[in-house]
Amino acid sequence: MDYTVSKKVDGEFDSVVEKTVDALEDAGFGVLSDIDVRATFAKKLDEEFRQYRILGACNPGLARQGLDADIELGALLPCNVVVYESDDDIVVSAVDPERLLGVADDPDLDAVAEDAADRFDRALGDL
Amino acid sequence: MDYTVSKKVDGEFDSVVEKTVDALEDAGFGVLSDIDVRATFAKKLDEEFRQYRILGACNPGLARQGLDADIELGALLPCNVVVYESDDDIVVSAVDPERLLGVADDPDLDAVAEDAADRFDRALGDL
Repeated sequence: MDYTVSKKVDGEFDSVVEKTVDALEDAGFGVLSDIDVRATFAKKLDEEFRQYRILGACNPGLARQGLDADIELGALLPCNVVVYESDDDIVVSAVDPERLLGVADDPDLDAVAEDAADRFDRALGDL
Repeated sequence: MDYTVSKKVDGEFDSVVEKTVDALEDAGFGVLSDIDVRATFAKKLDEEFRQYRILGACNPGLARQGLDADIELGALLPCNVVVYESDDDIVVSAVDPERLLGVADDPDLDAVAEDAADRFDRALGDL
């Protein structure tokens, strides 16, 4: 079963990353972390890799609700959106918050996950 | 079912965060992201919260293996270790990589998840 929702986007990599950050912000997410996987592999492994970024997206109100329900939940947050090169396109994939928070197996988190999923759908729809 | 492995640690919060980063590095993890949840809630929600940090821990070799098996896997990475205040102690909790990567439901990731879990056990043992 898929654990991401993906969209193929035309354009230049850095510009797609910028548009993704903007679309996430419009949907109520702040990007709290931004990992450059290619740069990390180049530095730590001396290996080449495709352009690949991991953006950590957090809606603070939903994160607060989630942590109030389960203080350990930070171990699963933020919800990531990855942007990477693939053949002729750039792929933008958001983790499915319902699959991710499903790891915590807590019905109190269902509404939070559903709200986050709706916001990711909106953000990907904007790309 | 628990999705984290936790340890209670005596000491001052910032010092426990530093020790955790050192223990992760000794176990082969780089900390690629560091989210200050309390500062985020103060800024974005104007709400108080306990001290709470989300450290994104990545072993580059394992991450590379995982991404070679499943290019979408970045949506679940890095593996987080949270450090937070709790009554008289500081709690350090690492996500269980086997539960987290279990979301991808790919047997090719089992060895990667097991290796990461062993490394987290070692890091928490050092605290």
